[in-house]
Amino acid sequence: MTTEKIKVAIAGGTGYTAGELLRLLINHPQVEICSVMSTTSAGRPITDFHRDLLGETDLKFTDNPGEPDVVFLCLGHGLSREFLTTHTLPAHCKVVDLGQDFRNTPDFEGKHFVYGLTDVFKDEIDGCDYLANPGCFATCIQLGLAPLAAMKMIQDEIHVTAITGATGAGRKLSETSHFPYRNDNISVYKSFSHQHLEEIGNTLKVLSGQPQTVNFVPMRGDFTRGIFASIYTRCTAPAEEVTSIYKEYYKSSPFVFVSDAPISLKEVVNTNKCLLHIESHNGYIHITSIIDNLLKGASGQAVENMNLMFGLERTTALHLKANAF
Amino acid sequence: MTTEKIKVAIAGGTGYTAGELLRLLINHPQVEICSVMSTTSAGRPITDFHRDLLGETDLKFTDNPGEPDVVFLCLGHGLSREFLTTHTLPAHCKVVDLGQDFRNTPDFEGKHFVYGLTDVFKDEIDGCDYLANPGCFATCIQLGLAPLAAMKMIQDEIHVTAITGATGAGRKLSETSHFPYRNDNISVYKSFSHQHLEEIGNTLKVLSGQPQTVNFVPMRGDFTRGIFASIYTRCTAPAEEVTSIYKEYYKSSPFVFVSDAPISLKEVVNTNKCLLHIESHNGYIHITSIIDNLLKGASGQAVENMNLMFGLERTTALHLKANAF
Amino acid sequence: MTTEKIKVAIAGGTGYTAGELLRLLINHPQVEICSVMSTTSAGRPITDFHRDLLGETDLKFTDNPGEPDVVFLCLGHGLSREFLTTHTLPAHCKVVDLGQDFRNTPDFEGKHFVYGLTDVFKDEIDGCDYLANPGCFATCIQLGLAPLAAMKMIQDEIHVTAITGATGAGRKLSETSHFPYRNDNISVYKSFSHQHLEEIGNTLKVLSGQPQTVNFVPMRGDFTRGIFASIYTRCTAPAEEVTSIYKEYYKSSPFVFVSDAPISLKEVVNTNKCLLHIESHNGYIHITSIIDNLLKGASGQAVENMNLMFGLERTTALHLKANAF
Amino acid sequence: MTTEKIKVAIAGGTGYTAGELLRLLINHPQVEICSVMSTTSAGRPITDFHRDLLGETDLKFTDNPGEPDVVFLCLGHGLSREFLTTHTLPAHCKVVDLGQDFRNTPDFEGKHFVYGLTDVFKDEIDGCDYLANPGCFATCIQLGLAPLAAMKMIQDEIHVTAITGATGAGRKLSETSHFPYRNDNISVYKSFSHQHLEEIGNTLKVLSGQPQTVNFVPMRGDFTRGIFASIYTRCTAPAEEVTSIYKEYYKSSPFVFVSDAPISLKEVVNTNKCLLHIESHNGYIHITSIIDNLLKGASGQAVENMNLMFGLERTTALHLKANAF
Repeated sequence: MTTEKIKVAIAGGTGYTAGELLRLLINHPQVEICSVMSTTSAGRPITDFHRDLLGETDLKFTDNPGEPDVVFLCLGHGLSREFLTTHTLPAHCKVVDLGQDFRNTPDFEGKHFVYGLTDVFKDEIDGCDYLANPGCFATCIQLGLAPLAAMKMIQDEIHVTAITGATGAGRKLSETSHFPYRNDNISVYKSFSHQHLEEIGNTLKVLSGQPQTVNFVPMRGDFTRGIFASIYTRCTAPAEEVTSIYKEYYKSSPFVFVSDAPISLKEVVNTNKCLLHIESHNGYIHITSIIDNLLKGASGQAVENMNLMFGLERTTALHLKANAF
Repeated sequence: MTTEKIKVAIAGGTGYTAGELLRLLINHPQVEICSVMSTTSAGRPITDFHRDLLGETDLKFTDNPGEPDVVFLCLGHGLSREFLTTHTLPAHCKVVDLGQDFRNTPDFEGKHFVYGLTDVFKDEIDGCDYLANPGCFATCIQLGLAPLAAMKMIQDEIHVTAITGATGAGRKLSETSHFPYRNDNISVYKSFSHQHLEEIGNTLKVLSGQPQTVNFVPMRGDFTRGIFASIYTRCTAPAEEVTSIYKEYYKSSPFVFVSDAPISLKEVVNTNKCLLHIESHNGYIHITSIIDNLLKGASGQAVENMNLMFGLERTTALHLKANAF
Repeated sequence: MTTEKIKVAIAGGTGYTAGELLRLLINHPQVEICSVMSTTSAGRPITDFHRDLLGETDLKFTDNPGEPDVVFLCLGHGLSREFLTTHTLPAHCKVVDLGQDFRNTPDFEGKHFVYGLTDVFKDEIDGCDYLANPGCFATCIQLGLAPLAAMKMIQDEIHVTAITGATGAGRKLSETSHFPYRNDNISVYKSFSHQHLEEIGNTLKVLSGQPQTVNFVPMRGDFTRGIFASIYTRCTAPAEEVTSIYKEYYKSSPFVFVSDAPISLKEVVNTNKCLLHIESHNGYIHITSIIDNLLKGASGQAVENMNLMFGLERTTALHLKANAF
Repeated sequence: MTTEKIKVAIAGGTGYTAGELLRLLINHPQVEICSVMSTTSAGRPITDFHRDLLGETDLKFTDNPGEPDVVFLCLGHGLSREFLTTHTLPAHCKVVDLGQDFRNTPDFEGKHFVYGLTDVFKDEIDGCDYLANPGCFATCIQLGLAPLAAMKMIQDEIHVTAITGATGAGRKLSETSHFPYRNDNISVYKSFSHQHLEEIGNTLKVLSGQPQTVNFVPMRGDFTRGIFASIYTRCTAPAEEVTSIYKEYYKSSPFVFVSDAPISLKEVVNTNKCLLHIESHNGYIHITSIIDNLLKGASGQAVENMNLMFGLERTTALHLKANAF
């Protein structure tokens, strides 16, 4: 553990995942935020965009990273590569990419990005320098399937329906995030073709030793935070056995828990937790998995990974009060 | 068409489906409401319970049906049988049961209850005397599958996830309908075992000529009205072909439409419509189906059936203004 | 009453108030929609924008009004004047402006626009040719104060807080209508300075014979439809007396009702109704007033006014099913 | 500061404010929870009721307090007195009452309960033994008025409209917390007569030296957490001057901040913060004040007070991550 604080830079500072990073990191005892970059808002207080931080920070957006020990990239598709190409970072500077540029193509200009699904790949993440943080749907679904895959218990296609909060679509204004449309509404998008299927497939293949088929229907929910995934696949093992396997698999995970009772989304919202519940019906094992899309599904897991990359206590700054309601 | 108005009685008058019947029938030009029964609130104005009818009616709850031409039963499980046993109705009085007592066991004391899925069984419903109105999930899912079943195109198991509004759980107070729990929350219940599976199975068998397996995960949504069903099954026919089949099948249905563009729940909320949209992916045909659970899924379809039972124009009192937002 | 149908044109056809007009008018037995204008979307089906009308109409947007008997202007501030200047309408064509161009400055190029607060100015509206439809907040607040003003019972300043649904801000995307901001949120805007204060002041002066001071705090609510206004002013008359005065004042109004019990917003949402409730406390009379901002507060009142302008039954096409939930 | 941990007991452990205390205190480094009492659920895991604590605690409900250093009373009206009468606590045990039994009648059996509006009465709270925690509306409104009162700048009646989330009504099922009623709905209750007016009046009298009249209209909002208060009173001082006075008054308050820009409720939800914003219009000073009703308005302020009562750092366990959306 270092005695000096880790200097953190954040690129894409006005977006939602950057905001969540800031909310976490200003309470992190071993971190000092050295720059929050924005190409459009340099010079303005970050509280102009992240209004709820009023009173908690006087930081202003900048247009350059400074001399960070780690940079978090909160940028759009393709822009992480561009950032690394156009910015000069200190040689020792680690990189955590919250975008999807390196999840499926991990090698870039001599850097190898470890896939940051913390509860599955902790050993590779420990002390690594470059990390591709998983997608939000991908995290929720993979945590729901990893133990089954690792035990080679996936025998057939996997059926997934997952519903996400509107923050998943980000700060950018859009028709489907316009309140009169979104409120009290449900819709399906990118059915069977969501871009997170690739990273899910990679992990399932690594764990189970063979390719798996995942049929995935994503839905837009009428709430702001969280992902609820309903997952089932053929499996003759009874729920009790599968539950035991899952509890064993996640026994050292500080934020993943298996619930014996059915779960509801708000049990994890605004925390870094993932809750799982398992039932068996008609020859299927049915797994429900819930996370907060901005925390375990993005910035929370990113901080958890940063902690591991720097040899810190993994849970630092992540014991968040649940909000429950 | 009769020249005198049809005298309507409603049993279970304080509940949500009774309220929707009242909202529809007070604007029905060929109907006269002769009694709204309540065992607990006889003598009180119905606007004490259905507050939004203030200014539209002075009706009071009664404790007996009077001399109706048709009675709508809006009662709990098992109570429809009890009502018919304990009440004497005029010999010519027709019965529309909105409960589930006669959906799967249609014969009772010499009466045969026709299953009231209007858009599929219109011919049997025309002029019938006893009708079992379908369940809300059952309506949404069956309308999504009927053309495929009728064309014998169901070759494998069917996968359904459907999410419902809180009015589906009725007026009775409960933990899972308590606002602090339900708001912004999602949960699964009765997975693979919902009671509507039986009536869905009956219809699919009738239409397709053989038993079908339906895997059904119901979800509680954080909105009040509507059901959104996502349905898929193996089918090699392209989406265009299936869309054509669906349009042909529903061409004479005044409230069921096939949308070429993706659909969202609020396009049907507060109407008697069902919208369907069809895509094909990876060897699956994926159907989304949406209804208002209290209208097409309950009281709207009940009025549509009543119109047919009395030889009236089927759409009478059902050209409802959509609310869109 | 004419035997031929009234030919209606709508300008600004893609917006929310135009959508509500369409939803009402396609069920109006004495109306034929002859054109729905859009400068940006001419040629496209109106269901591309008003998705919930799928199956109910095949109309397409046009770029000219045709030969209407009446045109509804659903345009932004200042654009109604521009429309009338740049378009040639038939000499007999009536005009209903849903914007605010003529509410406070009613004379324009020889035309005099009657202020269309139906329940107060019905006599002036009957048979008139040009009508300025009131604002949504203005309607809700004026209906809450008109009887008191007409009885010269306003003795002091008036205090109003009113909260509106997000459709009040229209279809245009904005930060404050972005779902992650708006959901579960409350905020104040334009306090003491909302533009509807002027038309409210005009009416109060006409009715009470002198200028009145209205302190008005508007709030953005986290729902889509409806306005809830809380209004109080010094008045020593007891609630029972004021209630009687209000019931008398609105006795011939088909959509305005005084409730003896407290009211809640959803009792009027998706209807053309206004509900009022009156209490007295500490020397104040406290009036709550609720409307649907898009119906009684815009398109519903506009149709009610059109009915009067053409000598039709005032309530035609406005007996809407309440949605209650 | 003690070196041993403070042993905390909680009475009324299944309720919402108890749940929030638990969520805060399990992360408090100087606290040990020694008992969570429930008369109805003794022996059951607390996660049966506070489901979001799964994985964070194995505590079970008990039926007696044990040997605490402080007991938090989270009981209904009148039950705090009863608890203290029927339970024997250690002589040194401090008491924090979250109910309203001692807010207006602070002396009970030789104990004097200090009124716990932390940011106003910090000096009295420091080291005290018995504390009456303020009501939620009372906290929000008093923090909005305290500087004005302390500066003797209140010259006339005060007008307040405040809207609260549904958790304010607690865990008990009720018609007005039933989701189909509450969702998208607004209503007024207890206008001009809310029970918190008494404690507000007490504080204003203490600070300003004379009685003040507060006209208060409370509203039920369609969200779960938070209170938004809109407050105005005659005041000729310009907004800038009043803003300066407020900033000075709260300069040592770690959770109360004055915003130069307008505020929206979610900027404080799930934190212990209070945000204030001040404008002047038409001779009125208009103050908006926002808090989380369960934190600054209940359990958060209770922990803040406990910290002061035990000489701990006031902000311990209260640097909560905002959730923003």
